[in-house]
Amino acid sequence: MKNPPSLDSLIAALKVLPGVGPKSAQRMAFHLLQRDKAGAERLARALDRALTNLTHCERCNTFSETPVCNLCADASRRQDLLCVVEMPADLLMLEQAHCHDGLYFVLMGRISPLDGVGPRDVALEKLFHRALDGVVEEVIVATNFTAEGEATAHVVTELLKNRGLKLTRIARGMPVGGELEYVDPGTLAQAMFERRKL
Amino acid sequence: MKNPPSLDSLIAALKVLPGVGPKSAQRMAFHLLQRDKAGAERLARALDRALTNLTHCERCNTFSETPVCNLCADASRRQDLLCVVEMPADLLMLEQAHCHDGLYFVLMGRISPLDGVGPRDVALEKLFHRALDGVVEEVIVATNFTAEGEATAHVVTELLKNRGLKLTRIARGMPVGGELEYVDPGTLAQAMFERRKL
Repeated sequence: MKNPPSLDSLIAALKVLPGVGPKSAQRMAFHLLQRDKAGAERLARALDRALTNLTHCERCNTFSETPVCNLCADASRRQDLLCVVEMPADLLMLEQAHCHDGLYFVLMGRISPLDGVGPRDVALEKLFHRALDGVVEEVIVATNFTAEGEATAHVVTELLKNRGLKLTRIARGMPVGGELEYVDPGTLAQAMFERRKL
Repeated sequence: MKNPPSLDSLIAALKVLPGVGPKSAQRMAFHLLQRDKAGAERLARALDRALTNLTHCERCNTFSETPVCNLCADASRRQDLLCVVEMPADLLMLEQAHCHDGLYFVLMGRISPLDGVGPRDVALEKLFHRALDGVVEEVIVATNFTAEGEATAHVVTELLKNRGLKLTRIARGMPVGGELEYVDPGTLAQAMFERRKL
């Protein structure tokens, strides 16, 4: 006794999603087929549409439906300031914070040897050409403060140093609203170490 | 600054999957588009194929590509024994255990008022007609031993009692290989309460 082939194929196909194992894939397939056929149809169409329409912005490498994304095409942004982030989600967070009026470069990943992601799997060569276009003066490295993000920041720094660019890293320290009593010791130590003059 | 529309549609569509919120949906979309386009294509095709091909078996209500599933069409199985389970996964587990040579009925759900799933959302009416076909003599209620599964078992029992059928429930007790020291108190209490004569 086995599942019908088209059910087994769907369960197998759902396992491509990150964090989805055999049991979740089965649960998802049953849910879609039993409780939300319209949602399943919508998902199939959204996958097709995204695969057809989305490409990477020529300049910043983020997902875009046009060769150059809206943000890169916006002449009102500072052209001399380039902020390097790991993923489009990071770019969106920085935009929500209204703290950067320059442009971005999205690596589309982080270097993570444990997951088999090396320097070739993030867009370092594209970044190299983008940063050395002669207009950019400062590159702000805004990768995460995780082990992978720090490794990525290191590789980006090595790639671009001694090329006449100002290289900076976003600050580590106490979060806004953070209380010393409750913050983790590593953050507190960094905040102390990177204290600045008043 | 926003995501391109086809990316936002894909993220929204992925949220139909159970247990997937906005953050996971975004992570899944990035993964599919960045690291596994072939997988995304496969998923879209598998969804289409499953939506087109799968229907419910006329007799046992499980997913099937034919009007009557292979198991129900198997004349070598005992026709007088009907085992009621919640989901196709339960049926597969029972088949793997080689402990039942009769037929099944799959409710395709459990009664769960908290999730808005009432008696009308599981296939009780279809079960009623199936169980009272004049051939079935014993109905084995094999829903889960969760609150929802027990509620479902109760409703199934109420539905079919006093109809000349023998109604049974699979046993609760210690798992095979279980040690008293490590089993949960509820299971131990049930195992004691439902002890049987040697």
